[in-house]
Amino acid sequence: MMRALASLLVAALAAFAAPASAQEQQFADLGTCGEISDCRIGYRTVGMLNEARDNAVLVPAWYGGTTEQMDFLAAAPFLDPETYFIILVDPIGNGVSISPSNSPSQPLGEFPALSIGDMVESEYRLVTEHLGLTRLHAVTGISMGGMQTFEWAARYPGFAEKFVPIIGSPRLPTYDIVFWDTGNAMRKWERECRCVEAREIAAGFNLVTRPIGLANTLAARSEAFDYIETSAQQDSFDEGTSWNMQRQSEAMIDHDIARHFGGDMALAARELGRQLEMMVVVSREDRVVSPDPAMDFARLAGFPLLVTDEGCGHGDFRCNPDVWTAAAGAFLASED
Amino acid sequence: MMRALASLLVAALAAFAAPASAQEQQFADLGTCGEISDCRIGYRTVGMLNEARDNAVLVPAWYGGTTEQMDFLAAAPFLDPETYFIILVDPIGNGVSISPSNSPSQPLGEFPALSIGDMVESEYRLVTEHLGLTRLHAVTGISMGGMQTFEWAARYPGFAEKFVPIIGSPRLPTYDIVFWDTGNAMRKWERECRCVEAREIAAGFNLVTRPIGLANTLAARSEAFDYIETSAQQDSFDEGTSWNMQRQSEAMIDHDIARHFGGDMALAARELGRQLEMMVVVSREDRVVSPDPAMDFARLAGFPLLVTDEGCGHGDFRCNPDVWTAAAGAFLASED
Repeated sequence: MMRALASLLVAALAAFAAPASAQEQQFADLGTCGEISDCRIGYRTVGMLNEARDNAVLVPAWYGGTTEQMDFLAAAPFLDPETYFIILVDPIGNGVSISPSNSPSQPLGEFPALSIGDMVESEYRLVTEHLGLTRLHAVTGISMGGMQTFEWAARYPGFAEKFVPIIGSPRLPTYDIVFWDTGNAMRKWERECRCVEAREIAAGFNLVTRPIGLANTLAARSEAFDYIETSAQQDSFDEGTSWNMQRQSEAMIDHDIARHFGGDMALAARELGRQLEMMVVVSREDRVVSPDPAMDFARLAGFPLLVTDEGCGHGDFRCNPDVWTAAAGAFLASED
Repeated sequence: MMRALASLLVAALAAFAAPASAQEQQFADLGTCGEISDCRIGYRTVGMLNEARDNAVLVPAWYGGTTEQMDFLAAAPFLDPETYFIILVDPIGNGVSISPSNSPSQPLGEFPALSIGDMVESEYRLVTEHLGLTRLHAVTGISMGGMQTFEWAARYPGFAEKFVPIIGSPRLPTYDIVFWDTGNAMRKWERECRCVEAREIAAGFNLVTRPIGLANTLAARSEAFDYIETSAQQDSFDEGTSWNMQRQSEAMIDHDIARHFGGDMALAARELGRQLEMMVVVSREDRVVSPDPAMDFARLAGFPLLVTDEGCGHGDFRCNPDVWTAAAGAFLASED
């Protein structure tokens, strides 16, 4: 789903694309990352580091997303490559960085438990050890990228000037946990059966977690069965991708920035509210990363909060980018 | 889910229960109902038919529901057994009336395709042939009972004074079709694997189609996995029930009262708006029977429409019954 979405955006924004030469896939070899061996992290950069070395913006990708699909972010009004040195990162488990699908020593189900903290720590090492930076202007990301942004804020509150989690979450509530865990249960079944039926159920699950009005536009009622069949046939099974998705889903389920504050999310919000600048963007009808935890956090911390309501749920950010990119861009550009 | 719900209501309203003697299970043998052999229809009556024989209210049960679970309806302020002769009906396929689980000649998967029209026609024959009535005061029902109420209005608009579909639909949109069809796909898998994993995925599917706020109250985030496991273990597999649910789900997917009006739902609404009295009750956040088709129908027909918004989605009708029972009761009691 997110891949198709990103492809759409890439196509739509191709006219704005930065020079291809600036966006070549690069890698940093970090040795081990906790329990994870062969810890190779993929990234791409756009724009130039300024002399003060203080204009870098780190953007980790979303669930299943890769930096290859992220040109659009660097080209949107939100992140101007004329102003910022943009570091797009492939999170661990996305199939480009070290992942169950490509690990030589810990392949597939042997890949260790993965956390959002593991992703963020590897990104911190990429930035400091590999790129030699001592600060960032900002960290921002969409969806699981927004979760990583929250985790960055909790782990390294003084390292960046600004944090902008977009449709992310500081910690998933029951609804979201069941959402991702049911996805993993379907994935496990598909690994066993290798059958199209598992993908049809997954396609149905995806549709019923959209806003109803949006779901009804995906296919006419007479075409509903065809839509599910076609969706299921488009997604061919790949065992490596299945394990990548499983480990990244587990990381989101486990995600909880309150663990850096004795399990107290209200304390986390008050402390970070004093220590750093953050703007929180959520979507009111989001049923993939539900908005309440991020909204509650922003209110407790006193951070600016932007709630979109464009009828596209988790896809609001692309339905009408104007409702958030200008405000988020202004927040990033603002002086203290 | 609906069973547990009905049990709660029965317990909560036990103090109001009508005399047990008035609610014994009865049956009408109708021979064949279209393709369905051994067409036996279960029902119960509450209250007394008056001398004018014009106070009967027909109440078909919901998806998977039985008249045994419907005491609460006859006891609610909505339907006073002192005023009405209440006929509770077991719809075809509910395991009490003729169903895949109990058919001697068409068992399980051999049971013919079932439609909401088949249910309604058998109910019409129960009322006319078996009970000897020539009119009803009203038809009303909840959920699939509301779909049957719409179908009654389309087929027999002059037979009842009033129609009150509650969280029902005149025709399911894409979202709802995928919802019920995905349920059937999970059911088919469960019949093949007989495994708890299928029930865990079904439990996850049920949770993520609740309002998010309600889903988050079902279990603490630390108890989310336990909740799904426990839910899955509570529902033991029964092949007969599986086929009953499958055929009733197929009936809902196929449901479309516009087919009596050349496929034109706007025409259906305008025609029925001229011919009969209806009050439509829906729940704004309902993700089981989505409210838009019934709302659009009520507006086009000029029927009174009551939209509940109690945060319980498809369960609004029981979260706070006061928001609809008094109004629906007044509508039933009103003179032309």
